[in-house]
Amino acid sequence: MAKIDLNCDLGESFGRYTLGLDDQVIPLITSANVACGMHAGDPVVMARTVFLAAASGVAIGAHPGYPDLQGFGRRNMALSPDEAYAFVLYQVAALSGFCKAQGVALHHVKPHGQLYNSAAKDEELAAAIARAVYDADPNLVLVGLAGSKLIDAGRAQGLRCAGEFFADRNYTSEGALVPRSQENAVITDEDQAVSRTVAAVKSGKVVAVDGTEVAVDFDTICVHGDGPKALAFVKKIRAALADAGVEIKAL
Amino acid sequence: MAKIDLNCDLGESFGRYTLGLDDQVIPLITSANVACGMHAGDPVVMARTVFLAAASGVAIGAHPGYPDLQGFGRRNMALSPDEAYAFVLYQVAALSGFCKAQGVALHHVKPHGQLYNSAAKDEELAAAIARAVYDADPNLVLVGLAGSKLIDAGRAQGLRCAGEFFADRNYTSEGALVPRSQENAVITDEDQAVSRTVAAVKSGKVVAVDGTEVAVDFDTICVHGDGPKALAFVKKIRAALADAGVEIKAL
Amino acid sequence: MAKIDLNCDLGESFGRYTLGLDDQVIPLITSANVACGMHAGDPVVMARTVFLAAASGVAIGAHPGYPDLQGFGRRNMALSPDEAYAFVLYQVAALSGFCKAQGVALHHVKPHGQLYNSAAKDEELAAAIARAVYDADPNLVLVGLAGSKLIDAGRAQGLRCAGEFFADRNYTSEGALVPRSQENAVITDEDQAVSRTVAAVKSGKVVAVDGTEVAVDFDTICVHGDGPKALAFVKKIRAALADAGVEIKAL
Amino acid sequence: MAKIDLNCDLGESFGRYTLGLDDQVIPLITSANVACGMHAGDPVVMARTVFLAAASGVAIGAHPGYPDLQGFGRRNMALSPDEAYAFVLYQVAALSGFCKAQGVALHHVKPHGQLYNSAAKDEELAAAIARAVYDADPNLVLVGLAGSKLIDAGRAQGLRCAGEFFADRNYTSEGALVPRSQENAVITDEDQAVSRTVAAVKSGKVVAVDGTEVAVDFDTICVHGDGPKALAFVKKIRAALADAGVEIKAL
Repeated sequence: MAKIDLNCDLGESFGRYTLGLDDQVIPLITSANVACGMHAGDPVVMARTVFLAAASGVAIGAHPGYPDLQGFGRRNMALSPDEAYAFVLYQVAALSGFCKAQGVALHHVKPHGQLYNSAAKDEELAAAIARAVYDADPNLVLVGLAGSKLIDAGRAQGLRCAGEFFADRNYTSEGALVPRSQENAVITDEDQAVSRTVAAVKSGKVVAVDGTEVAVDFDTICVHGDGPKALAFVKKIRAALADAGVEIKAL
Repeated sequence: MAKIDLNCDLGESFGRYTLGLDDQVIPLITSANVACGMHAGDPVVMARTVFLAAASGVAIGAHPGYPDLQGFGRRNMALSPDEAYAFVLYQVAALSGFCKAQGVALHHVKPHGQLYNSAAKDEELAAAIARAVYDADPNLVLVGLAGSKLIDAGRAQGLRCAGEFFADRNYTSEGALVPRSQENAVITDEDQAVSRTVAAVKSGKVVAVDGTEVAVDFDTICVHGDGPKALAFVKKIRAALADAGVEIKAL
Repeated sequence: MAKIDLNCDLGESFGRYTLGLDDQVIPLITSANVACGMHAGDPVVMARTVFLAAASGVAIGAHPGYPDLQGFGRRNMALSPDEAYAFVLYQVAALSGFCKAQGVALHHVKPHGQLYNSAAKDEELAAAIARAVYDADPNLVLVGLAGSKLIDAGRAQGLRCAGEFFADRNYTSEGALVPRSQENAVITDEDQAVSRTVAAVKSGKVVAVDGTEVAVDFDTICVHGDGPKALAFVKKIRAALADAGVEIKAL
Repeated sequence: MAKIDLNCDLGESFGRYTLGLDDQVIPLITSANVACGMHAGDPVVMARTVFLAAASGVAIGAHPGYPDLQGFGRRNMALSPDEAYAFVLYQVAALSGFCKAQGVALHHVKPHGQLYNSAAKDEELAAAIARAVYDADPNLVLVGLAGSKLIDAGRAQGLRCAGEFFADRNYTSEGALVPRSQENAVITDEDQAVSRTVAAVKSGKVVAVDGTEVAVDFDTICVHGDGPKALAFVKKIRAALADAGVEIKAL
């Protein structure tokens, strides 16, 4: 029986600022990526988010990002590999403290935003991140863009890796995401996004923008919990996966 | 044979800003308290400081502080106990990641600056810190002002605790530090500071400002590494302790 | 004819984090207090908020706070008077730059959160703030708690000052706010809050918690724009003031 | 008689962290570029630095940088033009507040570090910075790399501009700096650096790495004050300029 993981970025609130419907989306997913206080999140939010995730029994992951709260980790920052290593290790270890305090295991690491994007293409950055994750705990699963340099680096480091599929993004015939700068980057029709995702889970292939079929090697699907519409989409994709006989299960 | 620990606050550099002669003072001490990125230090500095301390074989501790880099953690900040818990756990766990990565154990925790001072008097804050340290790792040693609320809270939490003696400070007849707001708070004569410290290590007592003898229950002495004069003082106190037959040894 | 100013704290969003229904509340008020990037707000948000306020013709003020984004400026921080002076001058000047760029005048300054509360009681802090405002521009109006030390300090500095009334707070027989730690600090009945506010505007007096009447010398009322309920309250208080023949007008 | 300005980046200390021998270098220069609290500096340091510069009668400029204290503004950050505009305007206005408070004029703006480097090549970024400077005050002088896009943008905006020459850097035959990634980027021989700088001031030309002469249109020379060696170099260059009959004078 086919199975797939549903992951969501969580714990992105900060102090007085609330972001995301964490308590509502957690019961719908199997893996929670928790922000670690650099691009989003703070220690109080991290404690609460780990508590919510642990209470629902979802797998808890660290979601480290660039040290740029104002830019939400979405702007490129030219960190050296040594800096990236130290910033990722710091964040992963900090989150693991909250997991340990609450008697749950830290399960995976997924870089956030532009750190994720840059690590998909930049071998040195990818290697630095993989090394930081390994040094934090060699049993952690490294989550990255399916087929990316980050997955390669994680495997080379000896980490268990998981490729990520984007339900609402178009792919090139090489299996890469169509860049957001292009018009057809995002699939806006929800039903189309759901049906192609289910098909991809079952077949391991997706129809690229040029009409060809391309293999995508993935283990988890990224969903969002930042509004009622996002929640409805998660419910829709869960239902469609169930209908197709796919088990939704953590990595 | 009497023995004592010499501890020093280290890893207080930040980015382009260098503070402290860490490489020079580390060989002279037995315990290093490493800043954790909130009041001082950053992930790159933490990695380097743990490396230096591990290479010299000194015991490595976390030195968490208030989240106030501009104020260097020396200004009072009204954190709630839940906030203090989360900020301390975050910092201790982050530093433990660098220790784990380098194959050394995190050994102790000593709060920094105003967090240290407030925790000496405020039972709720002290309890929150003790709980954070325990949740990070119940085997950690909690270092605080000798005879303070923080030591009480640590013991109540079930932690091994270590009281700290200040070589250059005067004590009241109750065994508390004379507040810095008073003229005779600091002992400026180095030889006097050294001789009373050695005497205190051997007898467990110190002469208070009113001339009476008062018991001080301590296990470690705080020294500084922020300049050539501070380094010279550490060497002087080491020599005096050796002459008096006191072994200098980590907790 | 009696007249009164309605002021609201605005521009409290930060990067990806949105706070407040600024565009909806601005047309309902006469004075906007714009956060300046320390406890809330960032340069991009400041530019946009000044634009919105200028487009509606409301008086624009700076809303400086403690440098504590995670605590939203609501936690006490022990800044020295010199530090408070510099941090307030910095923030006021920064906001004035956005006003100048858009061809509008900066009109007033109202400290935020705990800086406001502390300055109401602490003469040295109040004097430092007053001096910073004066040095930024001697024509600025300083807004503070009616009858507080901050108002005294502003007058002593030669600034035009405006006292603030809180529609939903109870007062002591000395004209001070009942502390939030007491049960009857807040008036939860909206109609009661509106009617006592209108009465206070017309009479300059308010019924204290002990039943006595106490004079309150104020020029502006603080309203909120952080949700639909807050907006409805602003509309209600506007209508009640209009019914009572009170003109709503900037200071 | 030829004349030239000597400028230096100052006010780069932050809280407990001290950087630069500001008080010693200020009497040797004619223009001070003061950090504005984003990549370096804080409000207290800004107040003190403006005081020192004003006391010595040097021209005071703002030195805005990327919002990245840990990276000291030396790492590239992908700010959008609107973000760059807002961050530069914020910083320039904040510094102008300290100038106004002390009764001196803000005279110029020179971007810092990577913001300076990026603005030398990126037209959109350069235009955003020029617009921010103009909006802060159209009388400000914009300082940038001689012959760079930033100078072009400043002129297009209607600002008075000043090109900067680097005493210790080699130039290409196009008049650009040899990139630091190349071996011969920096001139390590002090005497050679001094003599070619004096020659460049007098002739407006410099010998490029390929031996050809190239015109460099500059008005100011950047010197450093971060150590005794840097101070000695400033004194040497001052002496050489005086010997050559060049007047050292603010822009």
